[in-house]
Amino acid sequence: MTESSDKQFSIGVDYGTNSVRALVVDIGTGAEIATAVFDYPSGEAGILLDPKDPNLARQNPADYIEGFYQSVASAVSEAAKVDGFSADQVVGIGVDTTGSTPIPVNREGMALGTLPEFKDTLAAHAWLWKDHTSHAEAQEITRAASEQGLPYLAKCGGTYSSEWYWSKILHCMRNAPDVANATYSWVELADFVPAFVTGSTDPDSLARSICAAGHKAMYHTDWGGLPSAEFLDSIEPGLSRFRYTTPAVASDHQAGKLSAEVAEKVGLKAGIPVAVGAFDAHMGAVGAGCGKGTLVKIMGTSTCDCMPAPLADELPDVPGLCGIVPESIMPGMYGLEAGQSAVGDIFNWFVKQLTPAKYGSDAHIKLTEEADRLKPGESGLVALDWNNGNRTVLVDPLLTGLIVGQNLHTTAAEVYRALVEATAFGALTIINRMEEYGVHVEEVINCGGIAEKNPMVMQIYADVCNRPMKISRSAQTCALGAAIFGAVAAQAYPSVEAAQANMTGVKETIYQPIDENVAVYQELYKIYSNLHDAFGTEAYSGSLSHIMKDLIAIRHRVRKESPDA
Amino acid sequence: MTESSDKQFSIGVDYGTNSVRALVVDIGTGAEIATAVFDYPSGEAGILLDPKDPNLARQNPADYIEGFYQSVASAVSEAAKVDGFSADQVVGIGVDTTGSTPIPVNREGMALGTLPEFKDTLAAHAWLWKDHTSHAEAQEITRAASEQGLPYLAKCGGTYSSEWYWSKILHCMRNAPDVANATYSWVELADFVPAFVTGSTDPDSLARSICAAGHKAMYHTDWGGLPSAEFLDSIEPGLSRFRYTTPAVASDHQAGKLSAEVAEKVGLKAGIPVAVGAFDAHMGAVGAGCGKGTLVKIMGTSTCDCMPAPLADELPDVPGLCGIVPESIMPGMYGLEAGQSAVGDIFNWFVKQLTPAKYGSDAHIKLTEEADRLKPGESGLVALDWNNGNRTVLVDPLLTGLIVGQNLHTTAAEVYRALVEATAFGALTIINRMEEYGVHVEEVINCGGIAEKNPMVMQIYADVCNRPMKISRSAQTCALGAAIFGAVAAQAYPSVEAAQANMTGVKETIYQPIDENVAVYQELYKIYSNLHDAFGTEAYSGSLSHIMKDLIAIRHRVRKESPDA
Repeated sequence: MTESSDKQFSIGVDYGTNSVRALVVDIGTGAEIATAVFDYPSGEAGILLDPKDPNLARQNPADYIEGFYQSVASAVSEAAKVDGFSADQVVGIGVDTTGSTPIPVNREGMALGTLPEFKDTLAAHAWLWKDHTSHAEAQEITRAASEQGLPYLAKCGGTYSSEWYWSKILHCMRNAPDVANATYSWVELADFVPAFVTGSTDPDSLARSICAAGHKAMYHTDWGGLPSAEFLDSIEPGLSRFRYTTPAVASDHQAGKLSAEVAEKVGLKAGIPVAVGAFDAHMGAVGAGCGKGTLVKIMGTSTCDCMPAPLADELPDVPGLCGIVPESIMPGMYGLEAGQSAVGDIFNWFVKQLTPAKYGSDAHIKLTEEADRLKPGESGLVALDWNNGNRTVLVDPLLTGLIVGQNLHTTAAEVYRALVEATAFGALTIINRMEEYGVHVEEVINCGGIAEKNPMVMQIYADVCNRPMKISRSAQTCALGAAIFGAVAAQAYPSVEAAQANMTGVKETIYQPIDENVAVYQELYKIYSNLHDAFGTEAYSGSLSHIMKDLIAIRHRVRKESPDA
Repeated sequence: MTESSDKQFSIGVDYGTNSVRALVVDIGTGAEIATAVFDYPSGEAGILLDPKDPNLARQNPADYIEGFYQSVASAVSEAAKVDGFSADQVVGIGVDTTGSTPIPVNREGMALGTLPEFKDTLAAHAWLWKDHTSHAEAQEITRAASEQGLPYLAKCGGTYSSEWYWSKILHCMRNAPDVANATYSWVELADFVPAFVTGSTDPDSLARSICAAGHKAMYHTDWGGLPSAEFLDSIEPGLSRFRYTTPAVASDHQAGKLSAEVAEKVGLKAGIPVAVGAFDAHMGAVGAGCGKGTLVKIMGTSTCDCMPAPLADELPDVPGLCGIVPESIMPGMYGLEAGQSAVGDIFNWFVKQLTPAKYGSDAHIKLTEEADRLKPGESGLVALDWNNGNRTVLVDPLLTGLIVGQNLHTTAAEVYRALVEATAFGALTIINRMEEYGVHVEEVINCGGIAEKNPMVMQIYADVCNRPMKISRSAQTCALGAAIFGAVAAQAYPSVEAAQANMTGVKETIYQPIDENVAVYQELYKIYSNLHDAFGTEAYSGSLSHIMKDLIAIRHRVRKESPDA
């Protein structure tokens, strides 16, 4: 035990795709005094897969609960070694998670996947954000809203996604009716954790995040919350059973107070305020110091691009943007969300599946070293960054990767660089779309492991986007953002902005665009755009735009026909 | 020494891309009694490369000479262990080589690259078939013939290739004038070896192969041999200096008799007839047992497709076919030649550059095992087989590879299979083009290492082409074909057909198309064709057809600008 002080601390708990991190933060300075990570033990790197269906990605909800206990307890005990910290001085807790990651729960709010009768049923577990099994249902929802002339999709880019709440629920109803019948409500992971740790798990009253509801479930005050029961039942009779009617709120609200049982397990006192949850990227944007005109890119396995805009501004609906939701990032501001379905995941895929032995066990580093010696355009390659579909601006999970320009000397490092460049072109496409609709991007702050650790990637982003790339001071912006909301929900600060002023910042190193690289990338971006439009839109009268979908349909049919299926 | 007999033998010497093979054959039965291989010692696997220019591929002519000595001497000494063989019973020698592989020689017929003053000058060495440095010159020759209304390209698909004789000579004149000035004549490798081993190296009189001249140098009796001096000089003044005027002949002719000096080095008697040389694939077709309507596919690093057709038939000019040349395969028949610029080279590239450690040191075998378990269409991938350009039917070296359909689970084995399938789609495109122009393909016989050793590849070819795939009985059809011409030139047989009747055959195993695979591949071939036309032709009004060329132009410019260049 170290000596006490008058410092105050909050804890941010950040649920990522493969692990959960707890971060203890000094709320006076933003100093991150202790952290701990827990890797989800189930499945492959925490993900339950189906070898027959590459679209399926589930998680064991028990991992989330165990992850809270383990990560928070470890972080608190680490913090206890630091001068001036005592567990009594933790004033608030915030939680951010992946999403849309809905979890089917029973009447008591227990996750079905944690019950013995459902432990081996994939549909009863958490439907991870990147689960794409529900693409047909997503198309059906988009069609229904459009045919019925309803405004539900206006705030989420005009197209409902296979990654989102209702698509997954609908898919479950149709393909796993036993699970759907046993389900009382579907709770987003961002709501599940605060509910569980505060003991407020009753699905009829637990706090629902405006971030999750607004961006993924078509929740909007303009139409009184979730889409109407009539609309939902028009798609599938009974779907409206999962329409909760409590108001969704921002994360400056409290979800509840830490329960005595959980407090004891993690070494904290009971009754600490726990903020309403939100998605990792949105809280990450806050942890990175976002405000009006600041685009924050959270670069991880996928990328989420978040930008606040004053509620007073008249914002147009931007086609292809994942969402424009009041208060989803910061109270008093619109939250604009865009994203790329895979970024780090593409690099990881390449390293796992297609990287030769000579790059050794830390292939990312060696590939980066070699790729960094190449000049823009030198490989003769251009790729599309669609290995996991396209979230913004095409909103189409049935798109796939493409690479063009290989010769007999093309190296792994050249392909690696082309994949990095492809993600940068995807990033530029999002910025361009925002600006075309009058939303000015004044600065770009990057965070996440890739931004932190890979100067080559950041220089390529600066050169491709022809803008300076700043890096968040914190290496754990999502967890820091969650800690900020923990402090704000506990009323240790009067506003998110006031907390940000003390707790966030950017690094001194800013990646500036290099003119000669910018010029080459402008040429390459034209080629990317041609491929983007040819394969992702109807620009070329259909012959190419159907190719990726035809291949997926053939694959699906062939796998189904397989005797092992 | 074993006991003598009344058997007769001939020796086929086959110059491949990376090595030369000598094969001793019993001409009564086709039995291959001894063989030896010599790997070219220079460069990377026998190829001199330029790290700055992936198009460059040269070879050291000294390797060819040493290769004859070593391979023939070893094969003869191996044969000497076999009952019934004696060196005195070798009646003829035939030679086949890669091509167009022209070599600059001096007045005496000595290869410049073997002279001390030129040993470090890449342009003075042999310009290997797959050297693509001369693409601009190829386009210029095509344009000149077309603008001047001259018929020179009618027999070679309408487009002159960067791989061919005059493109390379022209590129050398413009880029290495010192070498061009020291050059008295350019001699194809297929002519260089017979000339050297018979001591008939005078460029003004050495035997020139109709196969090399007709397919690669626009030689045709219709216009009196090579293109006119006026035409050549209209492209570049002085180019006509390399216009030889001796008649080019078929390989049933003798180039000369084995010289005493060479005979002694290889353990044979002097004076053995040596047949006029020809290209490996053409002699391979003969070794595989080709006749009217039989397409022989020689599958190696690239693929050459050869088919004879009776001179009596009225053959149309087939756009995109590499050549239709009287007697280039068999005396008394047209020789039709098509091909794919890279087949085995694509698989080798993938194994070298993009195959992870788990596939071990014999990755081809392990990848094949895994790929063989996949069903057609299961990977969701389609690739273009253009990593080394497209020889038939697009005749465009400035095309590159493309792969589409990757997701985050795509495996190396799936990519490997997609690359195999891409080459099969390329093969089908060639067959379709021939048949569209009335040249009926009655059977397909495959030979070369891939056909011999990889049943998965052959089954895919059968399924994609929807035709039975036969395999040549011999594993060394090119060398066997050369041995057949050795026997025929020595007049041990009255005709090639008579020699084939005794010396060739196909294996019992014939790969039959499997209906359900055929059906899936018909769908996938439509996708391949869409990509083929979009990226290889002007079908989509230019936006995509320029992509591969634009990328190459950017790469070229960027590399030139590089300070290390």
